[in-house]
Amino acid sequence: MNNITVTSPLLPNLEELNQYLEQIWEKKWITNMGTFHQELELALSRYLGVEYLSLFTNGTLPLITALQALDIREGEVITSPYSFVATSHAIWWNHLTPMFVDVDPATGNIDPNKIEAAITDKTVAILPVHCYGCPCDVERIDAIAKKHHLKVIYDAAHAFGVRVQAREGAWASILNFGDISTISFHATKVYNTIEGGALVCHSAEMKRLIDQLKNFGFEDETVVLAPGINSKMDEVRSAYGLLNLQQVDDAIAARKRVAKRYTEAIKQIKGIDLFPYIESLGAEQGFEWNCAYYPILINESEYGMTRDELYEKMKLQGVLGRRYFYPLITTFEPYRDFHTADPKNLPIATELANRVICLPMHHALTDTDIDRVIKAIVKL
Amino acid sequence: MNNITVTSPLLPNLEELNQYLEQIWEKKWITNMGTFHQELELALSRYLGVEYLSLFTNGTLPLITALQALDIREGEVITSPYSFVATSHAIWWNHLTPMFVDVDPATGNIDPNKIEAAITDKTVAILPVHCYGCPCDVERIDAIAKKHHLKVIYDAAHAFGVRVQAREGAWASILNFGDISTISFHATKVYNTIEGGALVCHSAEMKRLIDQLKNFGFEDETVVLAPGINSKMDEVRSAYGLLNLQQVDDAIAARKRVAKRYTEAIKQIKGIDLFPYIESLGAEQGFEWNCAYYPILINESEYGMTRDELYEKMKLQGVLGRRYFYPLITTFEPYRDFHTADPKNLPIATELANRVICLPMHHALTDTDIDRVIKAIVKL
Repeated sequence: MNNITVTSPLLPNLEELNQYLEQIWEKKWITNMGTFHQELELALSRYLGVEYLSLFTNGTLPLITALQALDIREGEVITSPYSFVATSHAIWWNHLTPMFVDVDPATGNIDPNKIEAAITDKTVAILPVHCYGCPCDVERIDAIAKKHHLKVIYDAAHAFGVRVQAREGAWASILNFGDISTISFHATKVYNTIEGGALVCHSAEMKRLIDQLKNFGFEDETVVLAPGINSKMDEVRSAYGLLNLQQVDDAIAARKRVAKRYTEAIKQIKGIDLFPYIESLGAEQGFEWNCAYYPILINESEYGMTRDELYEKMKLQGVLGRRYFYPLITTFEPYRDFHTADPKNLPIATELANRVICLPMHHALTDTDIDRVIKAIVKL
Repeated sequence: MNNITVTSPLLPNLEELNQYLEQIWEKKWITNMGTFHQELELALSRYLGVEYLSLFTNGTLPLITALQALDIREGEVITSPYSFVATSHAIWWNHLTPMFVDVDPATGNIDPNKIEAAITDKTVAILPVHCYGCPCDVERIDAIAKKHHLKVIYDAAHAFGVRVQAREGAWASILNFGDISTISFHATKVYNTIEGGALVCHSAEMKRLIDQLKNFGFEDETVVLAPGINSKMDEVRSAYGLLNLQQVDDAIAARKRVAKRYTEAIKQIKGIDLFPYIESLGAEQGFEWNCAYYPILINESEYGMTRDELYEKMKLQGVLGRRYFYPLITTFEPYRDFHTADPKNLPIATELANRVICLPMHHALTDTDIDRVIKAIVKL
């Protein structure tokens, strides 16, 4: 019996990719902002409904460059402990101090009610995460930032294609909030370019700076304005990304189907909780969810088994879930000594990290796969 | 008339690449240290004659990770101003201070005679560059480092396949010197993986640490030991790299042929100087040069034209040279205020930067191309 992996990459048709590769080979231009790179930036901007988008070679480097682009050179950055570790690493690489704030139990996102208490005279920015693709309370966060003159960078690694309904009723990409949003196109994501990522910003001037910073800080052939990094996306990944963009709507629709099947079954299982937005795929909360992940929360006493026992039991049945995000970033060696990393400061995040399993979730899960996953979590 | 570009990427056969892509698509494992990644690490180690090699996604990130892997957390790093700007950027990203030391006029490499004068009680490492693929005086540099308890990281971005004759007469890869060597597989290099790079180190323990640092610092699924970065090379680039390795010997042979034709012609031109190692391709200096670049040095008064005039004249004739490395790193905004960046401290590097043009140099130059390049620099 094959293992059911937690994710499986969306792959473009190889024959179509090969036609693009022939064009690249013909031009002998394989990286450094070639024509496919330009095409993909335009195509993604259009698809996502954003104005300025810069491609990157993976999902971590845009986080690092975002802080650099906002010229945040020293101080404290308020962030979530309930995320992939790259979120905090980006703060570290920019010589800044992470200040961890607890999350909202309904979403896993940073709790806006707790942000203001964490602001000091050294605070310079807020770096929240749209966890599992569920939007943060962007209006409240942006209001707090405005009041305290802070920059806001949204880690939207999970949030490809997520849209929110604004007050006037119009739908907008979640990437349009904050000063900059950063997104990942890693193999494991809803949309992938093998490895890749992007920054979304709101002015031509900022995009120009970001494009310079991802190319060593070169302003032109003979001027380097800042210690940039190399984060260029190459032509092969860009071509691959163009093809994947044509099938990502279908992939998201397939994910939604999986999510609905899971939800139906889990509602019958005592001791497994879901974030409230999952059942309506965000519709009741005013957003369109992309089903980037499917987190379940084990209530040990009701379920009669610990999270780790279930995780191991699933594994024995070939169902490879992931305890995502366990352990909390704040428990890792580089961060555990910050005073805000104290578990007492982060009771909700700590609880979520100890209860969560992300079920297999991708576009290619079959009905048989889904049945096997459900069977593995139904307690016998 | 087509332009003759300064470089042109070595491209694998597309049909062969496609066979590898089919295997990757079949496995649905497109990044995160898959089988092609493992194969390429082994194949490159064997080809280059090194024991421990870790692949990276580009040529800049290994420089950054090398300093991190050696646990150099504060202090000064002695380096060359005559290099691509990524060399100094790596020092900056590691929160360290670059100390610029002048170069040897015979090689463009850091001058060992001047290193000791630059050592202070804050010096922690030396980061020399094997400029254009010409080896640094590794024995003297390593002796100085030993005496002063400094780490040595060689920026071997240009030095793919370069070997040196050790005292006993045996030939060894230049990558075997220092604590760590870092190499680039960018499109423009002798050997490329589209974008890519590697670190070479000398113990299984160090390789293990490097492999963790390039993967966010993960020691295992639940332990993050340091603020690593994402520098993973993907499966497509790894497969591409395996194919390119099969043809890189031919590519280097083709480069040597071009270099010999250039040298023959340039010896007849008054006012153009060559580094002494170029005529014998390093043989007289005890090394095997890879012809990574072909730098010429304009003597304005003898040649009767400035370097920039020649550069522009070549361009008009469709011969795209590059003033590589002009301007010096030390003239760029992030570095110009360091006291060691003063041009008075760097007279040789300053002179080289003002005299150099790298001629078109790659495996695919035809006799007609070579004739055109030569015609463009023969003064009429």
